[in-house]
Amino acid sequence: MSGVLFDRIALIGIGLIGSSIARDAKALGLARNVVVSTRSAETLARAEELHLGTSYVASAAEAVDDADLVVVSVPVGASEAVAQQIASHLKPGAIVTDVGSTKASVIAQMAPHMPDGVHFIPGHPLAGTEKSGPDAGFEGLFRGRWCIFTPLPDTDPQALGKLKAFWTALGSRIDEMDPQHHDKVLAIVSHLPHIIAYNIVGTADDLETVTESEVIKYSASGFRDFTRLAASDPTMWRDVCLHNREAILEMLARFSEDLAYLQRAIRWGEGDKLFELFTRTRAVRRSIIEAGQDVDVPDFGRHALDKK
Amino acid sequence: MSGVLFDRIALIGIGLIGSSIARDAKALGLARNVVVSTRSAETLARAEELHLGTSYVASAAEAVDDADLVVVSVPVGASEAVAQQIASHLKPGAIVTDVGSTKASVIAQMAPHMPDGVHFIPGHPLAGTEKSGPDAGFEGLFRGRWCIFTPLPDTDPQALGKLKAFWTALGSRIDEMDPQHHDKVLAIVSHLPHIIAYNIVGTADDLETVTESEVIKYSASGFRDFTRLAASDPTMWRDVCLHNREAILEMLARFSEDLAYLQRAIRWGEGDKLFELFTRTRAVRRSIIEAGQDVDVPDFGRHALDKK
Repeated sequence: MSGVLFDRIALIGIGLIGSSIARDAKALGLARNVVVSTRSAETLARAEELHLGTSYVASAAEAVDDADLVVVSVPVGASEAVAQQIASHLKPGAIVTDVGSTKASVIAQMAPHMPDGVHFIPGHPLAGTEKSGPDAGFEGLFRGRWCIFTPLPDTDPQALGKLKAFWTALGSRIDEMDPQHHDKVLAIVSHLPHIIAYNIVGTADDLETVTESEVIKYSASGFRDFTRLAASDPTMWRDVCLHNREAILEMLARFSEDLAYLQRAIRWGEGDKLFELFTRTRAVRRSIIEAGQDVDVPDFGRHALDKK
Repeated sequence: MSGVLFDRIALIGIGLIGSSIARDAKALGLARNVVVSTRSAETLARAEELHLGTSYVASAAEAVDDADLVVVSVPVGASEAVAQQIASHLKPGAIVTDVGSTKASVIAQMAPHMPDGVHFIPGHPLAGTEKSGPDAGFEGLFRGRWCIFTPLPDTDPQALGKLKAFWTALGSRIDEMDPQHHDKVLAIVSHLPHIIAYNIVGTADDLETVTESEVIKYSASGFRDFTRLAASDPTMWRDVCLHNREAILEMLARFSEDLAYLQRAIRWGEGDKLFELFTRTRAVRRSIIEAGQDVDVPDFGRHALDKK
C-alpha cells in the first residue's frame, strides 16, 4: 500500500494502458476517486463491469472536472482532440500527463491548449503487450518497466515529483530525456521492430508459391515470433507511424541499407561477412539478458507452455 | 515407452538437435546402442559427461560402423564432408537421414556419395531454440512439432516407414514435400525471419544517435523479441544463407518491395494503407494461435517470468 497520492484521477482512454493504471491505482489505493472516460459507449460499459473506476462518463470534459491528475491514454493521433475537449475544464494546479509512444508530436498537439496554472508533463511508460482494450490490462504491467518523462523547460519540479511518485508507486523505473531524443530512441527500440514485424507478416501473407496454411502450420520455426508484434493495435500503430515520421524514416533507411549489404553477401556467398554479423548480434542478446530486460530461458520460456 | 526401433543409432553431430534426439532415444528406449560422434574433442567429452549415448568416437566413419540408423545433425555446409567420411563405412540396409534446414543442397551434397543398398532419406525437424551445443538439448523438443521428409524418387517405402516411426516416437508430426518446395516454405517461415532479426539487431548496434546501452535498456518495447532469433548459432545460419540462396533472395526481394511501399505510406501520411496492413496481420496471429502453433498468452507468457 502506497497510500493516497491524488484525491481524484481522471483516466481518458481505458485500453490496455489506461485499464492497467486503473487496476494498479485501485489495488494500491493511490486515489480516492478514479473517473473513467472513453468515447466508446461499449468500452465505457465494459470498464464499469470490470469495476475499473469509481465513476464513468463519456465526456472527457466532464471527467476532468475537479481532477488532480489527468492521464490521457489514447492513440497519439487523438491527443489534440482530447486537449481541446478538456482544456477549459481543467482545475488550476491539475497535472495532465499522457502515455504516448511519440513525444514531440504529442507536445505539439497538447501543449498549446493547456491553460496557465495546469501542469502538462508528457510521459511514456514502456510497457504493454500485443493485446488491447480494457480486458487486456492487468495489475503490475508497469512493474520493473521504464517510464520516460520529457518535461517542458518550464515544468514545475514539485508537480513532476508528484507524477514521478505516482509512477514509482506503480512499480516503474523513472527516466527523463528531451522529446526529440525520446522519439529517436523509440524509433529504433519499438517503432522499427513493429513496422518490420507488420511488414514480414504481410509479405508472407501475400505469397503465391507458399500457401497461407503452410505459413501458419510451420510458423514455429521463426515466423511466429514476428506475428506477436504484428498483432498489436492497428489504430495505435498507424498513429505512431504518422506521428514519428522523421525518426522512423531515418531508421528504416539504415535498416534497408544494412539489409542490402546482407543480401549482397548472400548473393555472392560471402560467408565471413554473414558470420561476423551473426556473432555480433548474439552478444546483444546476452547484454539484454544481463541487464534484466528479457527472460533468461530459451524460446522466451514458451516451450513449457507450448505443450498441451 | 515405444520400445526398441533400432539396434544401433549413430548420431553425427551432438548440438541442440543431436543431443535432444539422444535424450529422447534414451528416455524412450528406442535403441540398444547410441554412438555419439562429433569433430570437437571438447564437445565429445561434454556429451559423455552428460551420458547422452552408449559410446563416443571422434571419427564419423567409425561411428557409423554397423549402425542401422545414422542421423547427421551438422551445419548444412558440412554435409558433403560427412557423407564422404561415412560413405564406405555404412552397412547395407542402413538408413541415413539428416536434420538440415535446407534440403536441395543437402541432397546435392550427400546423395551422390551414398552407396547402393543404403537408404538416404533427407529430413528436417522444425524444432529448436536460440541456444546451441549439447547442453542446450532437452527431452521433448520435438513433441508436437513438424518433421518434414523430402524423400528421393527411389526411396524404399519400408525404410521411410521405419524412419517415420522413429520421429513419431519422438512426438513429431510427419509431413512430406519435395525438396524445392521445402526450401521455399522454409525461406519464408524460418530463414527470412532469422535474417531480418539479425539485420535489425545489427542496425541498432551501429547507431550513433542512440547508444547501445539505451537500446538494451529500453529493449522491452519490441526490440528484444528480435534478439532471440538473432542469438541463434552463427555457423548454422551462415550455412543456411549460403545453401538456400535462391529462395532466400526471392523472399528478401519481396520483403524489401513491401517495405518500400510501407515506407512510402509513412512518408506521405497514408494512414489508410497502414491501417489496412496492420489489421490484416493481426488475423494471421489469430490463425497461428488457433492452429496451436503458438501459446495463447500475451507477450509469449513472458510477463510472469519477467518479474523477479
